[in-house]
Amino acid sequence: MARWQPDARGRLEAAALELFGERGFDQTTVTDIAARAGLDKRTFYRLFGDKREALFSGSGHLEEILVKAVTETDADPFEAVITAFRRVAQVIFADRLELIRVRHSIIEASPELQERELRKIGSLTAAVAATLRAKGLHETTATLAAESGITVFRVAYARWVAPGSDASLADLIAETATELRTIVSAWGRGG
Amino acid sequence: MARWQPDARGRLEAAALELFGERGFDQTTVTDIAARAGLDKRTFYRLFGDKREALFSGSGHLEEILVKAVTETDADPFEAVITAFRRVAQVIFADRLELIRVRHSIIEASPELQERELRKIGSLTAAVAATLRAKGLHETTATLAAESGITVFRVAYARWVAPGSDASLADLIAETATELRTIVSAWGRGG
Repeated sequence: MARWQPDARGRLEAAALELFGERGFDQTTVTDIAARAGLDKRTFYRLFGDKREALFSGSGHLEEILVKAVTETDADPFEAVITAFRRVAQVIFADRLELIRVRHSIIEASPELQERELRKIGSLTAAVAATLRAKGLHETTATLAAESGITVFRVAYARWVAPGSDASLADLIAETATELRTIVSAWGRGG
Repeated sequence: MARWQPDARGRLEAAALELFGERGFDQTTVTDIAARAGLDKRTFYRLFGDKREALFSGSGHLEEILVKAVTETDADPFEAVITAFRRVAQVIFADRLELIRVRHSIIEASPELQERELRKIGSLTAAVAATLRAKGLHETTATLAAESGITVFRVAYARWVAPGSDASLADLIAETATELRTIVSAWGRGG
């Protein structure tokens, strides 16, 4: 039984991911998840609206760390967002590659879950842009830095969860940001 | 009666936008749209699945022009995407600001239509990335150039449809691409 976090929420999330990976999302019930975590259904429903929520409940925590990191830095906006994502990579993702690969493959298999993931990414982007605006940045600058940072994160994340990858997510984020800089630098300079 | 295109499809799209703007999306029926265009309901359903489709049928045309423009250029990938969007701006958007403002406000007012718009943007991004890969670019480069180009287009588009704006969409795309270059250039160079 997975006990990678001592709390009920973490145990239920890990149990859900294990079962989704073993049996498929549709074939897993809330009762199964609670039993695997050594808890009851009532505890599950106290913490999650439905079994889908067990796949997405980490995103509030991610947003919190990201917004805090963007708020606290004095760096330029894009650097601020990239540095914040690298912190998130270390705090939330680093030790969980196998569970996150399971989560990724479950979401990839379901258009409904993909759409939910896209909505979560949309609200994450909006939160980062709002944080940059609150620091006094112009609307356009804030949106471009937030959107580009999210693009870098998504590309790095896709490379990280791909089979056979062995670089750290934080390193892939830095590498992808550098590649974006190279690509975008070519604009308007002839070529 | 709007007759900004001589064909039935264009007349129905324009009639739909006018009526959505006047009465709201929910209060407009397919019968109303057909009548405003001087056509019958059967003609509408021959061309569109439902009234929502009348808001989105232009996106196939947009994708076609965009993919063609990206395919035909020898420029660097980001430059290729930006140049292609500027062509789209001239061919599809330039003369239709008022209708597009109506369309924009209808979509903004409906979470369901926003989601559909996001899906269309997602498939547009995928089509551009696939076109760049077909030109021999690496997966990461193709994705970053496509995503960044779409980000620039979306930001420029939002500035263009905003009340009081008077710059052309093509100019706003170039200006926004330059701003993105400035923002992203700061990465990893201290700051």
